[in-house]
Amino acid sequence: MSFMDRIAECHVFDPKGHRPFTVDGREVGLIDEALAERLRAFPDVFRVSPNRIEFAPGLDDFESRTEAVNDVLLEMNANGEIAGWRGEPYPVGDRFSGPVLFHMERAAVPLFGVRAYGVHMNGFVEKDGRLYMWVGKRSPNKPTGPGKLDQMVAGGQPAGISLIDNLIKECAEEAAIPRALAVKAKPIGAVSYTTRRKEGLRRDVLFNYDLAVPPDFEPRNTDGEIESFRLYPIEEVAEIVRDTDRFKFNCAVVVVDFLIRHGVIEPDHPDYLGMLKGLHG
Amino acid sequence: MSFMDRIAECHVFDPKGHRPFTVDGREVGLIDEALAERLRAFPDVFRVSPNRIEFAPGLDDFESRTEAVNDVLLEMNANGEIAGWRGEPYPVGDRFSGPVLFHMERAAVPLFGVRAYGVHMNGFVEKDGRLYMWVGKRSPNKPTGPGKLDQMVAGGQPAGISLIDNLIKECAEEAAIPRALAVKAKPIGAVSYTTRRKEGLRRDVLFNYDLAVPPDFEPRNTDGEIESFRLYPIEEVAEIVRDTDRFKFNCAVVVVDFLIRHGVIEPDHPDYLGMLKGLHG
Repeated sequence: MSFMDRIAECHVFDPKGHRPFTVDGREVGLIDEALAERLRAFPDVFRVSPNRIEFAPGLDDFESRTEAVNDVLLEMNANGEIAGWRGEPYPVGDRFSGPVLFHMERAAVPLFGVRAYGVHMNGFVEKDGRLYMWVGKRSPNKPTGPGKLDQMVAGGQPAGISLIDNLIKECAEEAAIPRALAVKAKPIGAVSYTTRRKEGLRRDVLFNYDLAVPPDFEPRNTDGEIESFRLYPIEEVAEIVRDTDRFKFNCAVVVVDFLIRHGVIEPDHPDYLGMLKGLHG
Repeated sequence: MSFMDRIAECHVFDPKGHRPFTVDGREVGLIDEALAERLRAFPDVFRVSPNRIEFAPGLDDFESRTEAVNDVLLEMNANGEIAGWRGEPYPVGDRFSGPVLFHMERAAVPLFGVRAYGVHMNGFVEKDGRLYMWVGKRSPNKPTGPGKLDQMVAGGQPAGISLIDNLIKECAEEAAIPRALAVKAKPIGAVSYTTRRKEGLRRDVLFNYDLAVPPDFEPRNTDGEIESFRLYPIEEVAEIVRDTDRFKFNCAVVVVDFLIRHGVIEPDHPDYLGMLKGLHG
């Protein structure tokens, strides 16, 4: 096993067998053949053709599209066709900084191959010239990655909240990090990937933050999403990521990015450039 | 002008009109039509065909290839066909961590579209919670980017020396940074690009380092390559990069990478993801 194995897991995708879901001429999703054929059952909502999926005529604004998609998803969910309903509306568009064309329930986002965004925060401690990282262990009840290792704080980016406000909220819920400390989190980049998972196609951008945590601070979960926290020497985190699949697939690559940016993985590593390329889609 | 303009300048390349230079089945260069036809004058060294350039039969090891190429380049240089002869052998291969197939004079590397590597070091100072960056102004006599702004320390990566030893050497030559300080430089990633410049095709990887410089240290150039150094508030560096072309084209993108990693450019910047993608080829 190697760091590149972790990155390869984030790039398992064959564009064949997917049709673009286009809205106002923008590609907002990639839908596999099975779902495309299933959507023929909703001709008032979707126009399914051999090379694309579009909204049915008349669905031409944010409200009507959001409502029509929601009705379809509720029916599919009642049928058991959607796993892990969250009740969290996610914004749908063709890029992060572009217009939001409609909202879609989070659990359906990977089914439709819609881009999703998240905030992941590396909590680290520097003590006596050595580097440590706070690692969370996800609750066994999480719909994705139950029991896997995770960043100190991470969460999806729902509609209607800024990245930094979302991060501050997640800091409070996931690790009881007070606002005064959370606002010191530094944005340091993002990782991007498209990969097939059991829940569907994950086309994610994770906006990453580093937070230097005071040595005497102990995170404490408040929302039941993290079972426990542990502070590891960074070399041990590197070994876990390199040699095991104990980290959730996308949290692993956020760690790889951290290890590169903090000089733990050095440029004479034979996969250095391959890792950098793989972290950015 | 924008940060993206700086990144776009590093991606000016149309693969049409270039033939691959392949050695042992590995693509080591991209040669434009004019040079490809010119190389027909050296049939003992190059086999020029419509879709590739190869070595002539018999040139099948490191020594014979290095010597044959050097003879061609000396003749071209005597003819005035190569600008800025350096006398520095660069390693040629299909990737940084792969085998070195032969050596080539540095000045010819962009003509043959051969990949080149460098080390660039951001020297920064943290004082009273504010960030400053040491910026060098290149000598008016440099063959590339005369008079342009540059990192505190930067240099090409020649054959036969490790990245860190090269950086320590450049630290001494360019900025009189003592070894004890230079070894604290932290590798933090790399930027990659392929772009057409007047000297030819630049297919570069710049391995980047950050060095936290003590507030009382003043760099001093010893090799004539840097005319002067100045410590700028980081916001001023960001403005210069965003609004002017005062930085050398590739030094500008190393600054953009620094600004992202240090949270100066924030993730709600509309070009954030475009910048990250552009920094990694």
